[in-house]
Amino acid sequence: MVKVALDALGGDFAPDVVIEGAINAANKDADLHIVLCGPEAEVKAGLEKRGYTGHGISVVDAPDPVAMDEHPVQVLKKKPHSGLVTCVALQKKGMVDASVSAGNSGAMMASCLMLLGKTTEKFGRPPIGCVIPTAEKPIVLVDAGANVDERASVLVDFAIAGSAFAETYFGREKPKVGLVNMGEEEHKGPAVCQEAYQLLKNAPVNFIGNIEGEDLIMGKADVAVTSGFTGNVILKMIEGFYEMHHKMFGNIDSEAGRKFDEMWDYRMTGGALLLGLNGTGIIAHGRSDALAIEKAVEVAAKYARLGVAKTVNARLSEIKDEEAPAQA
Amino acid sequence: MVKVALDALGGDFAPDVVIEGAINAANKDADLHIVLCGPEAEVKAGLEKRGYTGHGISVVDAPDPVAMDEHPVQVLKKKPHSGLVTCVALQKKGMVDASVSAGNSGAMMASCLMLLGKTTEKFGRPPIGCVIPTAEKPIVLVDAGANVDERASVLVDFAIAGSAFAETYFGREKPKVGLVNMGEEEHKGPAVCQEAYQLLKNAPVNFIGNIEGEDLIMGKADVAVTSGFTGNVILKMIEGFYEMHHKMFGNIDSEAGRKFDEMWDYRMTGGALLLGLNGTGIIAHGRSDALAIEKAVEVAAKYARLGVAKTVNARLSEIKDEEAPAQA
Repeated sequence: MVKVALDALGGDFAPDVVIEGAINAANKDADLHIVLCGPEAEVKAGLEKRGYTGHGISVVDAPDPVAMDEHPVQVLKKKPHSGLVTCVALQKKGMVDASVSAGNSGAMMASCLMLLGKTTEKFGRPPIGCVIPTAEKPIVLVDAGANVDERASVLVDFAIAGSAFAETYFGREKPKVGLVNMGEEEHKGPAVCQEAYQLLKNAPVNFIGNIEGEDLIMGKADVAVTSGFTGNVILKMIEGFYEMHHKMFGNIDSEAGRKFDEMWDYRMTGGALLLGLNGTGIIAHGRSDALAIEKAVEVAAKYARLGVAKTVNARLSEIKDEEAPAQA
Repeated sequence: MVKVALDALGGDFAPDVVIEGAINAANKDADLHIVLCGPEAEVKAGLEKRGYTGHGISVVDAPDPVAMDEHPVQVLKKKPHSGLVTCVALQKKGMVDASVSAGNSGAMMASCLMLLGKTTEKFGRPPIGCVIPTAEKPIVLVDAGANVDERASVLVDFAIAGSAFAETYFGREKPKVGLVNMGEEEHKGPAVCQEAYQLLKNAPVNFIGNIEGEDLIMGKADVAVTSGFTGNVILKMIEGFYEMHHKMFGNIDSEAGRKFDEMWDYRMTGGALLLGLNGTGIIAHGRSDALAIEKAVEVAAKYARLGVAKTVNARLSEIKDEEAPAQA
């Protein structure tokens, strides 16, 4: 049995779509238990209204609402009884295996970082690993937006974490790691990319060199490594492509149309994973609907079952220890 | 009569597709004259082979080939008789109105910068302005890849140049200028973006704030301002998305399908314009086919006729003078 805590008040359309998504996820997987964290009476009324009488969902009272623009650290300090913080606190106590919120993503990151903690202090800046679609297959994008102004060595950490993620989650051996850049040659791009290129040549990953925007979309790499800034632009552009395609063409009723929707609809991705933490913290899209929530819970369960976080952490710890100079 | 010089040996499939594209462009526009710069005998044979006997194309002998990876400044110094350098030199002498090359883009930039010269020394780093498709309408992306590691004030220069470009080329009054960023709020993103945001609030452009990747694709701005690095990733992703879409769906035979092809096919864009130079230098795609070359020449003629470079330069000079402190 895997247990997933879900922030009932997280996201633009909470709690309705969250409750609906939770019910759908619970009904599909008998080996999954969802703990909805939110205002108890309201959440229970929502379950009842939808006729849910199963045992796959329980409710933990967490009445404090969190605004989308509230300062992350303030949320953690002043809103311990919010759905968001409660979700993570339950995992800290060992009562659930993963925590999901579609609410204030900065607050979710801060809560996971402070409550679950980093695997190793040597891993400076935990990134967001996000599964994104390409023409070929889904790949891992890291960092999808947790950090800014990273040093080159931080990009190498991203590569190691992303590589372990892709290996565990997709089951791909020696996943191909590409550095997002503006040219193929190693001397191309900003100073930080040129430096990262040199470091990646000697890093314990299957580094295939620079990938340009087109290579990324065509699926040349299994892991696309980039700054949180560029990663966020990439992620949002992919969402924009999907939205634009649907605006222009609607639903295309063909095998290609269904395959496109399955891969490119942001809701199917189900939420991004914070890497390098002692636990499984999932950030779902702020504008999640019921389907997006259902998928986020589904993916959280899958991450927990596969032990993605554990594998990533083991890899990071190992490598960092090897790299550290021997102490007498 | 507008005159466009075209590098006959520029691009992955030169000179064949270049000659073919030139013929098609010349046949469509009686008021256009194309000067093909390349090995005279070869180019003339190519024209003859295709049965071209019109007066819309002349040939200037420029036998030196330029490799795609040759160092830009070396090309300028050691290959004055290359098609690429000759194209720009003819414009410098006032014999043509615009210069187009699908060859070594760094060498084309360097040639334009050194031979045509910057409008004003105060405009530090001329960017590439590129017309890109969105869900709504074409917009200007600036910088599409000429620079790296820009300071915030350089991004403001890009905004001014891009705004004048959009105004002149699209005929849009007060084009909306957006700063590509990873969030809407002004305190979001890397330090350079936060600083640029503050400068843009007081810049002589219609600044609408930050735009995220999705806003960009949905056409929220008329001008998307970003670093050359991010701009290049954006441009290449758009190309990748078009390529992927065709791979998945083929040609969609509907109004939407035709509109998509017309807007999103990179070949229709026709080449990017170097901004802030005394002249019209066009960088076409390295893998241009005959259609892409035809469109690049067509767009070069349009830029020259509309006086896009002149308007951009006037705007840049004006503003820079206003900004400079008064001298006693």
